[in-house]
Amino acid sequence: MPKAKSFVEEIELQGHIIDSLLLPKVLDEILTRGGAYTIKKIDLGKRQVDPSHARIEIKADAQQQLDEILRAVHEHGAVPTSPKDCETEPADMDGAFPERFYSTTNYRTQVRLGKDWIDVDDQEMDCGIVLELPSPPTPLPQGEGRPATARCLAMVHVKKGDAIVVGHQGVRVLPAETAARTSLFEFMSSAVSSEKPKGVTVREIAATMKRARAAGEKILAVLGPAVVHTGSVEHICELIRFGFLDVLFAGNALATHDIEQALFGTSLGVWLDRGLPAEEGHEHHLRAINRIRRLGGIQTAVDQGVLKSGIMFECVQHKIPYVLAGSIRDDGPLPEVVTDTLVAQDVMREKIKGVGFCLMIATMLHSIATGNLLPAAVKVACVDINPATVTKLADRGSHQTVGVVTDAEPFLRALVNELKSPLAA
Amino acid sequence: MPKAKSFVEEIELQGHIIDSLLLPKVLDEILTRGGAYTIKKIDLGKRQVDPSHARIEIKADAQQQLDEILRAVHEHGAVPTSPKDCETEPADMDGAFPERFYSTTNYRTQVRLGKDWIDVDDQEMDCGIVLELPSPPTPLPQGEGRPATARCLAMVHVKKGDAIVVGHQGVRVLPAETAARTSLFEFMSSAVSSEKPKGVTVREIAATMKRARAAGEKILAVLGPAVVHTGSVEHICELIRFGFLDVLFAGNALATHDIEQALFGTSLGVWLDRGLPAEEGHEHHLRAINRIRRLGGIQTAVDQGVLKSGIMFECVQHKIPYVLAGSIRDDGPLPEVVTDTLVAQDVMREKIKGVGFCLMIATMLHSIATGNLLPAAVKVACVDINPATVTKLADRGSHQTVGVVTDAEPFLRALVNELKSPLAA
Amino acid sequence: MPKAKSFVEEIELQGHIIDSLLLPKVLDEILTRGGAYTIKKIDLGKRQVDPSHARIEIKADAQQQLDEILRAVHEHGAVPTSPKDCETEPADMDGAFPERFYSTTNYRTQVRLGKDWIDVDDQEMDCGIVLELPSPPTPLPQGEGRPATARCLAMVHVKKGDAIVVGHQGVRVLPAETAARTSLFEFMSSAVSSEKPKGVTVREIAATMKRARAAGEKILAVLGPAVVHTGSVEHICELIRFGFLDVLFAGNALATHDIEQALFGTSLGVWLDRGLPAEEGHEHHLRAINRIRRLGGIQTAVDQGVLKSGIMFECVQHKIPYVLAGSIRDDGPLPEVVTDTLVAQDVMREKIKGVGFCLMIATMLHSIATGNLLPAAVKVACVDINPATVTKLADRGSHQTVGVVTDAEPFLRALVNELKSPLAA
Amino acid sequence: MPKAKSFVEEIELQGHIIDSLLLPKVLDEILTRGGAYTIKKIDLGKRQVDPSHARIEIKADAQQQLDEILRAVHEHGAVPTSPKDCETEPADMDGAFPERFYSTTNYRTQVRLGKDWIDVDDQEMDCGIVLELPSPPTPLPQGEGRPATARCLAMVHVKKGDAIVVGHQGVRVLPAETAARTSLFEFMSSAVSSEKPKGVTVREIAATMKRARAAGEKILAVLGPAVVHTGSVEHICELIRFGFLDVLFAGNALATHDIEQALFGTSLGVWLDRGLPAEEGHEHHLRAINRIRRLGGIQTAVDQGVLKSGIMFECVQHKIPYVLAGSIRDDGPLPEVVTDTLVAQDVMREKIKGVGFCLMIATMLHSIATGNLLPAAVKVACVDINPATVTKLADRGSHQTVGVVTDAEPFLRALVNELKSPLAA
Repeated sequence: MPKAKSFVEEIELQGHIIDSLLLPKVLDEILTRGGAYTIKKIDLGKRQVDPSHARIEIKADAQQQLDEILRAVHEHGAVPTSPKDCETEPADMDGAFPERFYSTTNYRTQVRLGKDWIDVDDQEMDCGIVLELPSPPTPLPQGEGRPATARCLAMVHVKKGDAIVVGHQGVRVLPAETAARTSLFEFMSSAVSSEKPKGVTVREIAATMKRARAAGEKILAVLGPAVVHTGSVEHICELIRFGFLDVLFAGNALATHDIEQALFGTSLGVWLDRGLPAEEGHEHHLRAINRIRRLGGIQTAVDQGVLKSGIMFECVQHKIPYVLAGSIRDDGPLPEVVTDTLVAQDVMREKIKGVGFCLMIATMLHSIATGNLLPAAVKVACVDINPATVTKLADRGSHQTVGVVTDAEPFLRALVNELKSPLAA
Repeated sequence: MPKAKSFVEEIELQGHIIDSLLLPKVLDEILTRGGAYTIKKIDLGKRQVDPSHARIEIKADAQQQLDEILRAVHEHGAVPTSPKDCETEPADMDGAFPERFYSTTNYRTQVRLGKDWIDVDDQEMDCGIVLELPSPPTPLPQGEGRPATARCLAMVHVKKGDAIVVGHQGVRVLPAETAARTSLFEFMSSAVSSEKPKGVTVREIAATMKRARAAGEKILAVLGPAVVHTGSVEHICELIRFGFLDVLFAGNALATHDIEQALFGTSLGVWLDRGLPAEEGHEHHLRAINRIRRLGGIQTAVDQGVLKSGIMFECVQHKIPYVLAGSIRDDGPLPEVVTDTLVAQDVMREKIKGVGFCLMIATMLHSIATGNLLPAAVKVACVDINPATVTKLADRGSHQTVGVVTDAEPFLRALVNELKSPLAA
Repeated sequence: MPKAKSFVEEIELQGHIIDSLLLPKVLDEILTRGGAYTIKKIDLGKRQVDPSHARIEIKADAQQQLDEILRAVHEHGAVPTSPKDCETEPADMDGAFPERFYSTTNYRTQVRLGKDWIDVDDQEMDCGIVLELPSPPTPLPQGEGRPATARCLAMVHVKKGDAIVVGHQGVRVLPAETAARTSLFEFMSSAVSSEKPKGVTVREIAATMKRARAAGEKILAVLGPAVVHTGSVEHICELIRFGFLDVLFAGNALATHDIEQALFGTSLGVWLDRGLPAEEGHEHHLRAINRIRRLGGIQTAVDQGVLKSGIMFECVQHKIPYVLAGSIRDDGPLPEVVTDTLVAQDVMREKIKGVGFCLMIATMLHSIATGNLLPAAVKVACVDINPATVTKLADRGSHQTVGVVTDAEPFLRALVNELKSPLAA
Repeated sequence: MPKAKSFVEEIELQGHIIDSLLLPKVLDEILTRGGAYTIKKIDLGKRQVDPSHARIEIKADAQQQLDEILRAVHEHGAVPTSPKDCETEPADMDGAFPERFYSTTNYRTQVRLGKDWIDVDDQEMDCGIVLELPSPPTPLPQGEGRPATARCLAMVHVKKGDAIVVGHQGVRVLPAETAARTSLFEFMSSAVSSEKPKGVTVREIAATMKRARAAGEKILAVLGPAVVHTGSVEHICELIRFGFLDVLFAGNALATHDIEQALFGTSLGVWLDRGLPAEEGHEHHLRAINRIRRLGGIQTAVDQGVLKSGIMFECVQHKIPYVLAGSIRDDGPLPEVVTDTLVAQDVMREKIKGVGFCLMIATMLHSIATGNLLPAAVKVACVDINPATVTKLADRGSHQTVGVVTDAEPFLRALVNELKSPLAA
C-alpha cells in the first residue's frame, strides 16, 4: 500500500499569477481536493506588467485524486512540467462526441501535438476539439513536420471517425489575464449597476469601437426590437453610415418593427413621433411582414422602392451582412429569417469571424446566443435596461464584457454623438 | 357636395356594455374619429348579469371616415344593424395574404356567410381567416344548406387560391365580457405586483386547475430552465403523477438541465442538494446532452434505464406529450428538439387543442410563443420573479391571464400542496 | 316590515360620465352592493368635450345598504340630488380624529356649508377635513354670510376641539376627468414600460414644464443620489440656471454626494470623469459631510468659497429653496437636514404651495413622500430605471402622472437640450 | 535629492493571505501606486486552514507615496513590522471630527496603545474612533497598566475634547478571512440571482439561525410592509412564538398594515383571505393608525383587548423589543414610531448589541440603515424579490451576507417549516 501523498506531479504556472489570482485559485483547488503542495520556485514580477512564474509540486493519496486535481488546476492554466501530447479518440457516430470528450471554454486554448503547442481555431465554448491532419490522414498525429490543425467543433457537426480530443492531457487554456484596472472595461466587468457615471461609459465604449475599427476588426451589433420601440432606428442607421457597424445579428421582430416604422411610422402600433397608439396599429407589424413576403424579401422591397428607410434599408444599401435568426414567437416571418436554429447558429458562426467588438442591445435571446459563439478575447458591451439581463450576460462572459444598465435610445444617441466627435478619437 | 355628416350607419351593441365599458369605448372611438352619434335606443340591464342593448346611429362626413369608425368600433363588438356577408379574396400566392386581409385577434370571432354567423375555428391572433367550402368548391360562399367552415390560418400556410377574408364586413368579434370582480382571475389580471397575498393566489390557481380537470380540459405547462435551477423538478413530477399536467411546452434548456440533474445531481453545474458548484459542473449539461444523443433520444434513455427520474422521465412514463422547441442559444441540442421554429409552432398548435388552463413558469420566450397561439378564453397563470416578464405577458393577454410575480420553487411547492389537499377541491 | 328596495335616494352625476367611465363605475357599485337603479334621465354630450348629465334613482333593501351605496358612488363624484350640509364632530383629543372622520383623497373636494359648496384647501390624501369658522367661533357652521373655510389636516396636527368633518354627507369629490387621449400625459399614465419612444416622452415633459413656467407655476424636483452617481449634476445645475427648477426636495445622500463630487470629484468614491474607483474614495462622502459640519452648513461653505459647484451650490446661488429630509440610513448628516420626519413633512407641505409640475428622479422614498402630499391636479413625471418604482408611484398617483422607465443621466441630458431649444416652446 | 525608491518600510501580513487573496491585493496596491516590493519572507500554510505569513519590503520614491501605499495596504490588514501607537487629536467642536480623522469600516479593528493592540468596541462603518482613558483622564494614552478603551463614534455624537484617532498609524483592521467554500453563506455572498436551488438556501438559513440561538446570540428581523401584503404575518408570529426572533426593526408601514390586518382583515385595503380589494379599504390603514393613536399606543391596544393578533401583538405578548423608525412617507404615524431619524439610529444601535444573525425582508430603507450599523461579523440574510435591492445590500455588506432573490411569503413559510422540523437541527 502506497504511503500517504505518494502520487506526485509537478505543475507550472505563468503570467500574472498573483494579481490575476491564478496562484491562489490553484492552491485552493489543490487543498479543497485533499491534496498537498510545495511551492518549489516562485518568481514574482516586480512590476504588475511583468509576468511571474511558479513551479508547484502536487501530492495526492491516489492517482484518481491526483487526476482530479490536475483537471481542476488545468482550467486556471496550470500545466504539468513534463507535458504529454493530447489524446484523441475517433468519434463512433455522427452528431455526438465520445464520452470522454474534452469540453471547451471560450478562452484561447492550445493542444500539444508532437511536442508543439498549437492553437485551437474557431474557439467557442461548449464544443469539442477535432484534430485535422494533413493527408495522407493517419489515425494518430505524429507531428513530423506535417502541419496538423485543431479546431472547435459543435456536437451536431461531429462525423463518425473524427479525431476528437479526450481528457485533459496535452491541452492548455490561456485564461485572460487581468491587467491593471486602468480601463473601464476591466473595472466594470464585475460591476453591473445602473448607478454609474454614464457619460464615461459611453466615451469608453466609443473609444473601444474606434480602436477596433482602426485595427481592421469588425464591429458586430446584436439588436432587439426595443431598439425600434424606443425610437433608436435613426441612431443605428447613423452607426451604419459612419462605418461603425459591420455585421448585424437580430431576429424577425427587430426587422419587422423596423420595416413597420418605415412603412407605417409605428412600432408595435405606437406612433414613433407622438408616442400614441395608432388606429389598428397593432395590425401594422403583420401587414408589414405580409407586404415584404408578397414582394419576396427585404432586398426586393428596397430595389422596388417600397422600403426607403430604416435599419434593414441601410443594411441593404451599405451591403452590411445580417443574420435574422428565427424564434418560436415569430409572426410571419420575413423571408430572410433563418427558421432552423441550427442553421442560424452556423450562419452566425461564419459571420463572427473577424469580429473584434460586439455591441448587444436590448435582447437576451440573441445576446446569449451570440455570447455562446464568441471567443473570450472579443470585447463586448451589453446594454439593457434590465439589470437581470445584463448580469446574466456578464456571468457567462469574460473579463472583456462591460454590462451597462441603461436605456437603449439615449445610450445610442450619446454613443453616436461620441463617435461623430472628432476630439474623441 | 354632400352636407356635413350625411354618411350614416346604424350599429348594434349588446352584452354588458356599460359595466364592461364597451359603450363608452365605442362612443369614444366615434368622437375621436370626428364622427357624431345619436343613441337611438338603450336598454340597460337591471342587474349586472343582465345584458344590455344599444342602437347607435353613427354620422360621418365621408364614406372613408365612416368606414374607419366602423372598423374601430368593430373591435369592441359593435356590428351594423343590417349586416352583410363577409368578403373574401383568393390568395394570389403561397405564403402571403392579399393586402386587404382581415387580421385576427385571439377573441372568439364569427363570420357571416349566407346570413348565418359561423364561428371561426382554431382562433389565434395575428392570422388571417380562410373559408373552406364543401365540395364542389365554389369561389363564393352562398350557404345554401352547405356547411361552410372558417378557420384561422397562419401567413406561412397560405396556399394560392385560398379564400381569404378581407375587410371587416361580415366579421364580428365577441370580446370577453368582464364579469363582476368576485374572482381573483378577474381582479388580478390588471394588477401585476409582487405585493399580493400569495397564499390566496395559489389557492385560486389550484381551484382553477381542478375545475379545468373536472371539465375534461387539458392543462398545459410552459416551463423555463429556472424550474430546474431553483430545485422545482420534483414539484413538476408530482403535478404529472397527480394528473395535473397534460401537455408540456419547453425548450432544450429545461430538458437538458432536468436530465443533467437526473444524471449528475446538478443544474448548470450547481449541486441541487447543497447549492454549491460542482467540480467541472459547468460541463455537466453538455455531457448530459451528449449522452442522450449517443443513445438516440430521451425515450431510449428511459427505456434503457439511463434516465430514471425527473420531468422528462415522468413525461415518458406517463405518456405526457411534450414539445421541445429549438432556439438559437441551444447547446446540442437533445434529439427531440424541434429545431425549425415554424415546424415547432405547428406542433404546438396541434397540442394546444383541448387546453383549458395554461401554467407558464419562468420563461419569456416560450410563454410569449404560447400566448400567441392560445385563444383568449383559455385561462393562463403566468409566474415569473421578474415583474417585466409578467407585465409583458399580461399586456398581450386577455382578461383570463393572471400574472404572479413570485419565485418558481416555493410557488410550485405551495401549488402542489394545495392540489393534494382534499379540502381545497 | 318595509317591502324590498323601499329605501330610495336620487343621485346626480355630471361631467364626462361615459367616456371617463364614471357612469359604468357608479352602476357597478350599485349592483355589486345589492342595490337596484333606474336611470331617470341621461343627457349624453354629443361631442367628447361636452359634459353629460345623469340622474339615477338608487333603491336598496335597508338604510345601511343604501348608505353604503351612497358612500361608494360618492368617490366617483355622484352626489344626492337633494344634498345636505356636511357634518362635523369636535376632536376629543389632540393628534387623532374622531372615529367617523372623513378620510381625504388627493382629488379636489368640496364640502357643503349653509347650502354652498366650498372648496377644501390644501388638498392632500389621507388627511381629515377641518372646518374653520370666522370668529366668534361657533360649534356648528350656519353659513349666514360668514366666510367659513375648510382645509385638509394631517392627523398629527389635530387639536382638541377642532371641527372635523365626519361621514360622507355634504362632501363631494371632483375626480379628474379623463380628457381625450391626445396628450402623452393621458396615454402614458397607465402604461409603464421601458419600451416606449423616448424622444417623444422627453419632448412632452419639456413642453409641460414650459407651460407650467409660462403659467407662473412652480417646478419641483425630487432627486435621489443616483442623479449624482450617474453624472447628472451638471444637467440639474442647468435646469436651475435656466429657471426650470424652483424647489428641490431631496435627502442627505443627494446633497452629500453632490458636495463630494464638488470637493473630491467622486460620487460614492467613483471618479465621475473616469468611472473608476478612487483610492480611499469610499471615505470621501463622510469627509465631505464632516467638512460641511465643521463649517456650520452648506450656506457657509458657499460663502467661504469652499463649495464652488454642484446642485447645492447653485441652489444657494439662485436662492432655490430646498428641503433635505432625514432618513435612518443617513451618515452625518449635513447640518441642513431636517432629521425629524414630521417636521420635514410640514416643511415640504409649505414648499409645495404653488407647484404646478413635479419631476421625480431616481428616489422611491422621497417620491412617495412627495406624492402623498401633492394634490391630484399637479402634473408629475416620475423617472426611474426600475419599473417597479415607477409602477408603485403611478399606482398611487392620479391620471396626471407620467411614469418613465429610463436612465437618469441621458434622460436629463435630453431634457435640458429640449428645454434649451427655442423651437420646442 | 534622494535616489529613486529610497523610502522604505517593511510590512507584515498574516492569515489566509493567498486563498483569501490578501497578498495579491496588497501587491496590486503597491504596484498601482508606483511602488516596488521585495517579498522578504513568505510562509505559506500547507493546508487551507493553516495561516500564512509574509514580510514585504515596500519602496517608494517619496514619503507621500509611501504613506499612500501604507494607507492602501492597511485596509487589507497589512501593518508595518515596527508599528507605532495610534495618534489622536482632540475634537475641536461638537458634532464633527478633526479633518484627519480615521474613518472606520465594519470589520473588526484594533488600535495600538502603549504597545498593546486593543479592540475597538461598537464596531460600525463610517464612524470615527474615540479613545477613552480611565480617570484621571490624560490627553494622551500611555497604557501604563491603565485599561484604556476605544470605540466607534458617530459624527453626530462627537463632543469637543474627545480624543479622536487620526491617520492610519497604529490602527489595524482584521478583514474577514474567506474560509473554504463549503458553506452556502460563503458561496452565495457574491452571487445574487433568482436562479438558485431555493430549498437549500432556506435550509442553510434555518441552520444558521439555530446555531445563532444555540450560541446565545440574538436574532434580529428587519421587515418591510410587503411582509404583510404578501400574507406572511402568521409566519413572523410563528418565528416569535418559537423563539427565533429577538429584536424587530421596522417602520410605521409594517406596523400599520399589520394592525390593519388585525383590525380589518386587509392590507393596503386588500382582503388577505381573498386577494380582492375591500370597499373603502384604502382608508383602513389610516383608520387603524387613528384608532391606535386614540388609545395611546400599541401596548395599550393590546392591554385593552383591541389588538388581538399579528406581529405587533406577538411582540407585546412576548416582550420582543422593537424599533419603529420614522420616515417621511409615513401616515400618522403610530405613537411608538421614533420620528427623529438620529434618535432612531441610536435606539437601533442599542438594540443591535448581542445580535448574531439578521434577517432582512422586503425593505431597502431599513435594511440599508441596519447594514450601516452592523459589524461585518454578523451573519445577514437579505431576502427581496427585487434583485437590485439584494445586490445593493450585498455590495455594502461583508462576506457574511447572503442575498436571496425570492418572494417573502413562500420564503417565510418554508423557513418556518424548516425551523419547526426536529431533524433539521
